[in-house]
Amino acid sequence: MNQELIGTLDQTIVLLRQQRLDELRTLLTDLHPADLAEVLRELEEEQRTAVVQLLAGATAAEAISELELEEQADLVTALPPAQAKAILDEMSADDVADLFAELKPEQAGALLDLMAHEEATDVRELMGFEEDSAGGIMTTEFVAIHAHRTAAEAIEQLRREAPSAETAYYVYVVDARERLVGVLSLRELIVAPPETEVRSIMRTNPVAVHVSEDQEEVARVVQKYNLLAVPVVDDQQILRGIVTVDDVIDVIEEEATEDLYRAGGVSEVEQEIDIEGAIWPSIKARLPWLLGLLFLSLLSGKVIETFTPLMDRVSALAVFITTMAGGAGNAATQALTVMVRRLATGEVERDRLVRVVWREARIGLAIGLFCGVVLGIAATLWHGSPWIGVIIGLSITVNLMLAKAAGSLVPVLIQRIGLDPAVASGPFIATITDTTSMLVYFSIAALVLRAVL
Amino acid sequence: MNQELIGTLDQTIVLLRQQRLDELRTLLTDLHPADLAEVLRELEEEQRTAVVQLLAGATAAEAISELELEEQADLVTALPPAQAKAILDEMSADDVADLFAELKPEQAGALLDLMAHEEATDVRELMGFEEDSAGGIMTTEFVAIHAHRTAAEAIEQLRREAPSAETAYYVYVVDARERLVGVLSLRELIVAPPETEVRSIMRTNPVAVHVSEDQEEVARVVQKYNLLAVPVVDDQQILRGIVTVDDVIDVIEEEATEDLYRAGGVSEVEQEIDIEGAIWPSIKARLPWLLGLLFLSLLSGKVIETFTPLMDRVSALAVFITTMAGGAGNAATQALTVMVRRLATGEVERDRLVRVVWREARIGLAIGLFCGVVLGIAATLWHGSPWIGVIIGLSITVNLMLAKAAGSLVPVLIQRIGLDPAVASGPFIATITDTTSMLVYFSIAALVLRAVL
Repeated sequence: MNQELIGTLDQTIVLLRQQRLDELRTLLTDLHPADLAEVLRELEEEQRTAVVQLLAGATAAEAISELELEEQADLVTALPPAQAKAILDEMSADDVADLFAELKPEQAGALLDLMAHEEATDVRELMGFEEDSAGGIMTTEFVAIHAHRTAAEAIEQLRREAPSAETAYYVYVVDARERLVGVLSLRELIVAPPETEVRSIMRTNPVAVHVSEDQEEVARVVQKYNLLAVPVVDDQQILRGIVTVDDVIDVIEEEATEDLYRAGGVSEVEQEIDIEGAIWPSIKARLPWLLGLLFLSLLSGKVIETFTPLMDRVSALAVFITTMAGGAGNAATQALTVMVRRLATGEVERDRLVRVVWREARIGLAIGLFCGVVLGIAATLWHGSPWIGVIIGLSITVNLMLAKAAGSLVPVLIQRIGLDPAVASGPFIATITDTTSMLVYFSIAALVLRAVL
Repeated sequence: MNQELIGTLDQTIVLLRQQRLDELRTLLTDLHPADLAEVLRELEEEQRTAVVQLLAGATAAEAISELELEEQADLVTALPPAQAKAILDEMSADDVADLFAELKPEQAGALLDLMAHEEATDVRELMGFEEDSAGGIMTTEFVAIHAHRTAAEAIEQLRREAPSAETAYYVYVVDARERLVGVLSLRELIVAPPETEVRSIMRTNPVAVHVSEDQEEVARVVQKYNLLAVPVVDDQQILRGIVTVDDVIDVIEEEATEDLYRAGGVSEVEQEIDIEGAIWPSIKARLPWLLGLLFLSLLSGKVIETFTPLMDRVSALAVFITTMAGGAGNAATQALTVMVRRLATGEVERDRLVRVVWREARIGLAIGLFCGVVLGIAATLWHGSPWIGVIIGLSITVNLMLAKAAGSLVPVLIQRIGLDPAVASGPFIATITDTTSMLVYFSIAALVLRAVL
């Protein structure tokens, strides 16, 4: 929150306390909806309800749409019915559908009954689509015009419908059966001679997505073609809605957070959790992973146990367990991170995977050799025994190479069996390499020591 | 690449070989520039140059702008000067500036000399800004109109300047000294009575960013206010350019990859590296981290060394070293991941950090207690000694709690000293907790065993 906005917030609280409501209304109506939302977010629940009741439906609706869904739900259910109706009718149908998905079915039903018939129909339709599909993120506010209309008539229709700013930058052209046949940008419409039919100036074969298309794919289409909005059609090519670029940005952010969380071994549900709220949801999101990995790590303990007699003879070996396991885990995490991201962005083609894994193994060998020599010398100096140095050097070389190969191979295998490669997290691969690194380390130690002792 | 586009690619190669160039020109000119770019990307270098020479400057320019910078550079330097000029003059100035930044200074200079004077001046200006700043990503193509003009004059100016589609959705209003004073959407312009002065219908106090603003902050502003473009001003409030939403999407993707790579302990330069190319750049990007962390991990080895006599007496202790270090590392990575992301998206406010870290510690205690009891029982069964179980259970409880607290605290501390919290990677925190977990584990073991033995 910037200084100016903090000032506005303080003023809001003062005006509210002194019941100078007309002044307060003027102050808040002048704000950008996104800023008004920030002010609302900082108010106590009662203050927030009072402020919203003060504002016109449209102003309140725009600001409320900017709040988190949970905050929206709390607010709307706290309002008297008439106020709730005024706001819901003004919100865009896709925002209302998202909000209702947060409520209990009977609450949503009651609010739907309050709403104007046409808006309620749109909302009901949108609520029928999968949350993560084009249908789930599209809005039904768009400008569609029949192909035989003129440019002047199209502009006239735009004036009449006065759609909200975000959705009016393309005019979609449909045929008699409402099927999408073309698109025009507002600029093209203005530049065209007024009497031209839109079908003679429209771009045909417009880029469009199907209602059931995954939201990530929708984002990719908007990105590839640099669109401000993409039309959404059904099986009959009938225009059902549009996805605007601001919603695409939210999808991209959401997916990026999801990938990041998975990489850190955190469930993606964690991004919905209130970071100052109860701890139970976070426990539920993290415990299964942690406990599973702890049990998996007992496998590396089993390997260590097998070599206990060796450690009893050369106790220096125990000293390098964490270095060995940690080094392999870190090397594998690096390779995994690069591979998962490149698979996600489609940079690696299927038929080139072997080459890419082989490249990682060579990187691992080179880095392993270098680190092996350096750590081998360090171990020799530390423990005064060149044999310890040889064991450490050799083990690090082999372990880093294996770790790099494993780190790049595991996401590929996961993709092959049909899962999202992002489920392979850093913690997971590090726990896997704990076992392999112990096996390599103690085997090399046993071989070297048998040759020496 | 979809089936249709693969067909187009095959046809392109056939038509090129048979020198049926007119047909080829028709085929390619009908493609969307983004699709044309995909076709170009798949062609051999010679074919690509031949195809580009066939196309009109504007068509080629749009497609080339969609290629990777490296591909653009190879292509433009391979063209005859007249062709290169035709394309560069048609590309937007910000794309040309980015492309020239890829070239050797003398190559860029030679191409700049070819370009039309006005375009070259724009490019020179843009090349002076930091790559990651608003100035570095803005375009100088925008529509600015003086405040005393009428709506009709504004539309007339739009017709005359015919700017490219992405940049024409807002009209910026400036005063006599070219300072930004307002903004109008195209829709507002159309709806307004033709004779109205723009200053009476414009929105004043438009959201704007400074030329030196960081690109991440620019993205955040565009996102917050749901803009299609944001104006960029200098110290005198003079309008210098605009950043469009498609470039903002690229920034968001770039930053997401950067955060993901950092979380995995990989340098962000890795995203520029050809995944099928030479291994040396990847080695350079990863080796410093790995080697540094290996040395850091020797600290945990030092702790283990201190407790060697204890392990000599109870050799089962060595068996749980990887479980203990791995569990702490994984718990810390989870907490770190959540914290870094929430700091990056601005969800955690400065004055609430203590509360958030304290919450993580409580999550760690709860998860630690649960895992401690389960693993303690498992250890007892495995080693037939309840004391081993007590040691393991207690150590896991304490270690997971400390790890969660450390994982959330470290990024906060890093931010406090003025660095990007994302530099704290999973591998880094895991290596730190290696040492603390060994210290906790063996101290608890020593205490318990002293009480028992």
